[in-house]
Amino acid sequence: MNLPPWRQIKNRTMTSDKLDQRPSAIREAVQNEYAFATAYFDRLTAISTDPAGGITRDTYGPGEDAAHRIMADIAQECGFDLRVDIAGNTYARWETGPGRKTVVVGSHLDSVPRGGNFDGAAGPLAGLIAMRVLRRLGAEPHVSLCAMGIRAEESVWFQTSYIGSRAALGTLPHDTYDAARRIDTGRTLADHMRASGCDVDALRNGARPLDPAGLAAYIELHIEQAPSLVEDAKPVGICTAIPGNFRYPDARIKGVHGHVGTPRRFRTDAALAAADLAMAMDTLWSKQEAAGNPMAVTFGRFHTDDAYHGLTTVPGLFHFSLDVRAYDAVHLDMVEREFHAIITRIEADRNVSIDLGERKSAPVGKADLAIRTGFATAARDLGIDFMEMGSPASHDAAAFAAAGVPMGMIFVRNENGSHHPNEAMEIDDFLDGSAVLTAYLYDRYCQ
Amino acid sequence: MNLPPWRQIKNRTMTSDKLDQRPSAIREAVQNEYAFATAYFDRLTAISTDPAGGITRDTYGPGEDAAHRIMADIAQECGFDLRVDIAGNTYARWETGPGRKTVVVGSHLDSVPRGGNFDGAAGPLAGLIAMRVLRRLGAEPHVSLCAMGIRAEESVWFQTSYIGSRAALGTLPHDTYDAARRIDTGRTLADHMRASGCDVDALRNGARPLDPAGLAAYIELHIEQAPSLVEDAKPVGICTAIPGNFRYPDARIKGVHGHVGTPRRFRTDAALAAADLAMAMDTLWSKQEAAGNPMAVTFGRFHTDDAYHGLTTVPGLFHFSLDVRAYDAVHLDMVEREFHAIITRIEADRNVSIDLGERKSAPVGKADLAIRTGFATAARDLGIDFMEMGSPASHDAAAFAAAGVPMGMIFVRNENGSHHPNEAMEIDDFLDGSAVLTAYLYDRYCQ
Repeated sequence: MNLPPWRQIKNRTMTSDKLDQRPSAIREAVQNEYAFATAYFDRLTAISTDPAGGITRDTYGPGEDAAHRIMADIAQECGFDLRVDIAGNTYARWETGPGRKTVVVGSHLDSVPRGGNFDGAAGPLAGLIAMRVLRRLGAEPHVSLCAMGIRAEESVWFQTSYIGSRAALGTLPHDTYDAARRIDTGRTLADHMRASGCDVDALRNGARPLDPAGLAAYIELHIEQAPSLVEDAKPVGICTAIPGNFRYPDARIKGVHGHVGTPRRFRTDAALAAADLAMAMDTLWSKQEAAGNPMAVTFGRFHTDDAYHGLTTVPGLFHFSLDVRAYDAVHLDMVEREFHAIITRIEADRNVSIDLGERKSAPVGKADLAIRTGFATAARDLGIDFMEMGSPASHDAAAFAAAGVPMGMIFVRNENGSHHPNEAMEIDDFLDGSAVLTAYLYDRYCQ
Repeated sequence: MNLPPWRQIKNRTMTSDKLDQRPSAIREAVQNEYAFATAYFDRLTAISTDPAGGITRDTYGPGEDAAHRIMADIAQECGFDLRVDIAGNTYARWETGPGRKTVVVGSHLDSVPRGGNFDGAAGPLAGLIAMRVLRRLGAEPHVSLCAMGIRAEESVWFQTSYIGSRAALGTLPHDTYDAARRIDTGRTLADHMRASGCDVDALRNGARPLDPAGLAAYIELHIEQAPSLVEDAKPVGICTAIPGNFRYPDARIKGVHGHVGTPRRFRTDAALAAADLAMAMDTLWSKQEAAGNPMAVTFGRFHTDDAYHGLTTVPGLFHFSLDVRAYDAVHLDMVEREFHAIITRIEADRNVSIDLGERKSAPVGKADLAIRTGFATAARDLGIDFMEMGSPASHDAAAFAAAGVPMGMIFVRNENGSHHPNEAMEIDDFLDGSAVLTAYLYDRYCQ
């Protein structure tokens, strides 16, 4: 036992009279990974603490590269087979026999600027822990297992979703490599990938490091990016679906700059047009939620033009980004139609022109029902409280689902949201989520 | 006659059978100032063309300083007495006798960044032309006359209204000199004024270069900063009042930054709170206009925080500036009370905190009824079409009115608004406005 005394005291009492020996052994073995888990997070903190606050592991940049080197080192220290694919994804593999399908347990290792340490990085660690525990307990999986550190999930950098996973699965449109540019450097995705050692030409020519047909399942553990689990006082969530989205990363409203004294009838105020748009979308959202259709609307960038704006100028130019997400493809399509009707109404009412720029989208990803059920059974057996929930955020799991791979996700309670430095996952909760994962892998693949 | 042949052809036909000789002589003499006027504007263009487009004459900076030197040179070339006061304002004086009150005809010589050449600078020129014409026609004013180039009217630079005129009149709060900082340089008003040769200490100790008791009137000619005159096809407008305003140059809305997938019930989105505020003010404005209460609402800066905003982040911080203006003090006060009620409602509804920052304000300035009537009589005598109108914009004339000086303003038709490079005043229209001014000065002070 590596646990300090206070950790042993803090362990939840098992209702052992209702359980056989197996869940208890798994849970104890996973809890013994406490020091391994904290060491992993500490190593990541050391290479990615941002002087401006929080954690920055920039996508296909020095921060993400360093995180992948750490994962590679740990994979080898643990005695797993290390592989790095031509899109830069890092794999710790436990090959159990030739010709067997693989269960991948992964998540991303990049972060938003000044983000948190657990967002993404918890996922590959859960995979490593599950593999370590199953090996230690003498389990004999009839699939190969693999922990995967995925590249380029945070779309803030290249304004594109699931780059690393889709590149590996062969589903990233090939024009993305030259079309997408990193928002801070202005350099293309291809340039950044080459600098991180990737073979962009091979990917563009159809190479597919991860054949979906060879995957039995994709499983991802991730901090919850909302406080639903905190609100309900549950350590673990089981994902029902990942929202699809439509996005306009770089939209503009053009009016006419004018003097602050311009009478109302002569104005074409781009900022008021933007406010009108935002409130119309907010009203639509509110009504949809009331009707039982969960969705989310985010104008992440929403701003007058800093080359022109000022106290005494009617804004003639406004910029915004928009992300709209929902859990049902038909509902999402309906919302997008209403969005376009609102745009048309505002252009007419306010005499502005709205240039939405490039449209991006991601399909809804439904969790595999057998995996969801297996997670729930495992959690009940372990005595770990959980709730089923739609994923607040997008995740690589959606890219695997879109490629036809059965997908499941486990969320871990997180106190202060994500994408900022104050995310606060308890390692206890993380180990509960990892125990559910490990017990599920044991039940499904080791018996 | 200095006019080229095409100018003579373009002159409007005078309805001379209905008019005596005087209006005709004044109008012709003013029209002969065409070359003088264009030379003046050309000299200003030469020293203030901005490489990024338009005209920049920065307040208490190199651009404004150069404009004042040009005005000083022209005053001396015309044989008027030159004076520069300790706030940096430039005067071309025609002293007609000891102890007489003075009629000041002025406007500002600064501009917004990348603005237009006529906004402000037309006013001192009109004063110079009126004095030149009256002198040439042998008029004998029983007041002294003075053209005044005013400093620091464009509040975009120091976020403060009427600095130059209020400094001269002794009505600028003395703490402004150290409190106000220029938005681009960050240096205090006092520093900038000293660099332009002003005596800030004397001003702060109560020196008052322009004693309101010594002024018979303040008259300002200015381009219209809206297209009302274009719409009504009239060259000249006569001001009824200058709007008062309340302003919050640097307000902030604080919410909580969150992940793009955060469910609605957990969000405190500062951008949606801002949109709610803007739409509430827009609705209030629309209703007030429909009720016959002209006003204007401008959120000139209206933006998410560029250190945090992004496609995948719920905005937790929003910045805005607000200018609200109206022509009636009671109405303006009512609007401000409603604004605060809206702020309170939004803080409660959306769980944000709104920090309005410093409040600035300017009182409503009513034009002197005798001057308005005199302008109208002069315009009718000259056969120049006009309309009465509230000033769209704020002007130094409001500072003179607030100091108890009878005030009048003449607006000149301007095709494309102001505060940007495309302002388009015709010199013909400017000379029509100058003729109204000159005829009024003749009628009121030379007979």
